[in-house]
Amino acid sequence: MAAASSADVVLHNAFVVTMDSADAVLRDGAVAVMGDRIAAVGPSADVLAAFPRAAQTLDLAGRILIPGFVNTHVHTSQQLARGIADDVDLMTWLHGRIWPYESHMTEEDSYASTLLCCIELIRSGVTCFAEAGGQYVSEMARAVELLGLRACLTKSTMDCGDGLPPNWSSCSTDDCIQSQKDLYAKHHNTADGRIRIWFGLRQIMNATDRLLLETRDVAQELNTGIHMHIAEIPHENQLVMRTKGIDHGTVTYLEKIDFLRSNLLAAHSVWLNEPEINHFSKAGVKVSHCPASAMRLLGFAPIREMLDSGVCVSLGTDGAPSNNRMSIVDEMYLASLINKGREVYIGGTTNPTALPSETVLKMATINGAKAVLWDDEIGSLEVGKKADLVVVNPFKWSMLPLHDTIANIVYCMRTENIESVMCNGKWIMKDQKIMNFSETDGPFSSEKTLSDTILR
Amino acid sequence: MAAASSADVVLHNAFVVTMDSADAVLRDGAVAVMGDRIAAVGPSADVLAAFPRAAQTLDLAGRILIPGFVNTHVHTSQQLARGIADDVDLMTWLHGRIWPYESHMTEEDSYASTLLCCIELIRSGVTCFAEAGGQYVSEMARAVELLGLRACLTKSTMDCGDGLPPNWSSCSTDDCIQSQKDLYAKHHNTADGRIRIWFGLRQIMNATDRLLLETRDVAQELNTGIHMHIAEIPHENQLVMRTKGIDHGTVTYLEKIDFLRSNLLAAHSVWLNEPEINHFSKAGVKVSHCPASAMRLLGFAPIREMLDSGVCVSLGTDGAPSNNRMSIVDEMYLASLINKGREVYIGGTTNPTALPSETVLKMATINGAKAVLWDDEIGSLEVGKKADLVVVNPFKWSMLPLHDTIANIVYCMRTENIESVMCNGKWIMKDQKIMNFSETDGPFSSEKTLSDTILR
Repeated sequence: MAAASSADVVLHNAFVVTMDSADAVLRDGAVAVMGDRIAAVGPSADVLAAFPRAAQTLDLAGRILIPGFVNTHVHTSQQLARGIADDVDLMTWLHGRIWPYESHMTEEDSYASTLLCCIELIRSGVTCFAEAGGQYVSEMARAVELLGLRACLTKSTMDCGDGLPPNWSSCSTDDCIQSQKDLYAKHHNTADGRIRIWFGLRQIMNATDRLLLETRDVAQELNTGIHMHIAEIPHENQLVMRTKGIDHGTVTYLEKIDFLRSNLLAAHSVWLNEPEINHFSKAGVKVSHCPASAMRLLGFAPIREMLDSGVCVSLGTDGAPSNNRMSIVDEMYLASLINKGREVYIGGTTNPTALPSETVLKMATINGAKAVLWDDEIGSLEVGKKADLVVVNPFKWSMLPLHDTIANIVYCMRTENIESVMCNGKWIMKDQKIMNFSETDGPFSSEKTLSDTILR
Repeated sequence: MAAASSADVVLHNAFVVTMDSADAVLRDGAVAVMGDRIAAVGPSADVLAAFPRAAQTLDLAGRILIPGFVNTHVHTSQQLARGIADDVDLMTWLHGRIWPYESHMTEEDSYASTLLCCIELIRSGVTCFAEAGGQYVSEMARAVELLGLRACLTKSTMDCGDGLPPNWSSCSTDDCIQSQKDLYAKHHNTADGRIRIWFGLRQIMNATDRLLLETRDVAQELNTGIHMHIAEIPHENQLVMRTKGIDHGTVTYLEKIDFLRSNLLAAHSVWLNEPEINHFSKAGVKVSHCPASAMRLLGFAPIREMLDSGVCVSLGTDGAPSNNRMSIVDEMYLASLINKGREVYIGGTTNPTALPSETVLKMATINGAKAVLWDDEIGSLEVGKKADLVVVNPFKWSMLPLHDTIANIVYCMRTENIESVMCNGKWIMKDQKIMNFSETDGPFSSEKTLSDTILR
């Protein structure tokens, strides 16, 4: 505990789940916040005694305090496309629905989409997310800055590939790199340090080797991360085998060209064999597991095997037309369930002990922080880290009784239980009210507007 | 539309999803309720004109009206055990946790457990459920009657089997049958007809042939249903093959002894081969698919194949220690996702077109009504049926935008969107307030009581 004597907020009388390296839990615990950082974590009595002149002291009456969730794969631009591509095959989904939608978006659409998406993220307890790659990063940044979230924003780049919409197919390798450098110069470390700019690669079939390797080098030079969809479907691996002359899919090829680094965030990573899992482990590649999206479009990722090999696996929601819920609360529940169920196809029966609740909660917090290369400052409730935290009210029908708090957070909690969310020392949702944006303004909110414009 | 001139409630200006045999949807629709029944369904203007003297006329401002969900497999007695058996193997789950818990319950425990469970059911839009089988049916009935729900209640019976708790192992076949006849005489068709009594069989390893066949005959004689766990795990089928001398599991045996009838509700039904699916189809057996519980403990049921064979498949939550959410809202989402994902193991890729949202919504409504043998009165919004309905408010972050209303109900809706619930013509939840029970009374509700009794 720090020995400071003043604090902006002291939250006490809470069940504090720190997610620190000792998995410490405090039954009558407190967290003190000073500026944008955590100044103390400890027993309520000690923290209250250490900060007698705190500007605000809140008795949480037994509520739960957890680190803010990190959602490591989010297509903010796709939020307005929720419901346009349900129950259709993958090619219709991509070519017939998503590409036409995304390639016709305006900057204002992107801003609105990101706003709506980020409201859902906050309401599901997320304080930091990694954008999967859209077109209008400045508009994403505008929405993120306004709402008070933390994010790693990324432009989607493609310098080759068949079937792309006309306005997407003309980007040269140099343009791809330069436009991201420009975004980095403009937005990296803005919004009180809450926004970082990453480099983005849509997927291997839309990237030349030169784009891959230059992205690797520039990202390393700028000390930032790379976000890329990897090994999503069997077809991808088959195509890579056929065109690149290797014996297994994308990961084998990326290893061969020395692309894999510890600043790579690999989204989905469903179709990996054992040697490929080892490549990820050895290089320190991070994985974003997106359970709902995987069930619908991709398949069962070898999550248990990756965790066993020491790969850092985090959780993501993917985009609204793939999921359609954008809630880490639900992804935790799903991740545990489908990975227990998947064991049927390996051992003949489900394995109810696979991906226990403690592991899943790590995936959504500290592993998420590692995946976005920010675990020195977020992902756990520890002195000196940024004050990114969530107040959970478990005293409702959805989480009672409370025999096992961690299990109830992962398996029972619903967004109803997410009461307040703080990011960077500031409340961005308080008592279920979004603080920096009125949900009753704008195009999505009024019942009259909606029923007039959408339902009729 | 009925030609009556007065009504108790007219709900108009709604998006009405009738779930009738034509799958009719009304964009500016209305439902009139008279007593416990639906008196009209039609365009708002027509219904308003037909019932000018309705006692209450509610403008739903574009909200969605759907039939109440039917949850066809619920262990109400297990609600207080949520969190006692997470992430443990199946034998520990059953012998070490659930049996000791259930066999030590008092009648008062059962009442409290059912109350808490039913509150969760109502909040997830359920108006009717099928109890999977507990010990104290009169206590279940007390809670169901109070809260205003509709239910098929069932006592769990076992007249043989190894390893049962001492106070459960002494029940004779005759006692099993007689105690259920007594419950039928006492509770069947009570609570304004909302409560029906069914016959219960825990599972094949705890039932002699005499219990199976007498249950079949008595249920037929009393014109009621039978609820039984069937083909849950590979071990069950293996044991049946070994002890009964047949070539495949439980369903093959039940067919052989002529047990299968159309009043049988088979819970889970995970491990069926193709001939067994045909036995179900031919006999008209109904299935309760419980996706979350199956993922954790059982496996992937052949749901698409059963639907293709004409088997009536409905949805259930199972009990809180198996799930742990007791929400049909989440089961719809899960059912669609995991059955899309399961296709990977059949065809090499997921099938995003498997179990489309319309099919899943049927499973949760009209198929549920058929499964509990009540589709003459519930499961759809049609004139003459009981007024069991749900008002969904889609104008929130969780369901916007509304490009595809049915898809959004199945994939995006959360319990936050369930605004009001009517059962048997009476509001049992209105504007998210449970009508017949105060959630701030009693042992689960007060924050002070809870943090004092559970967290400390």
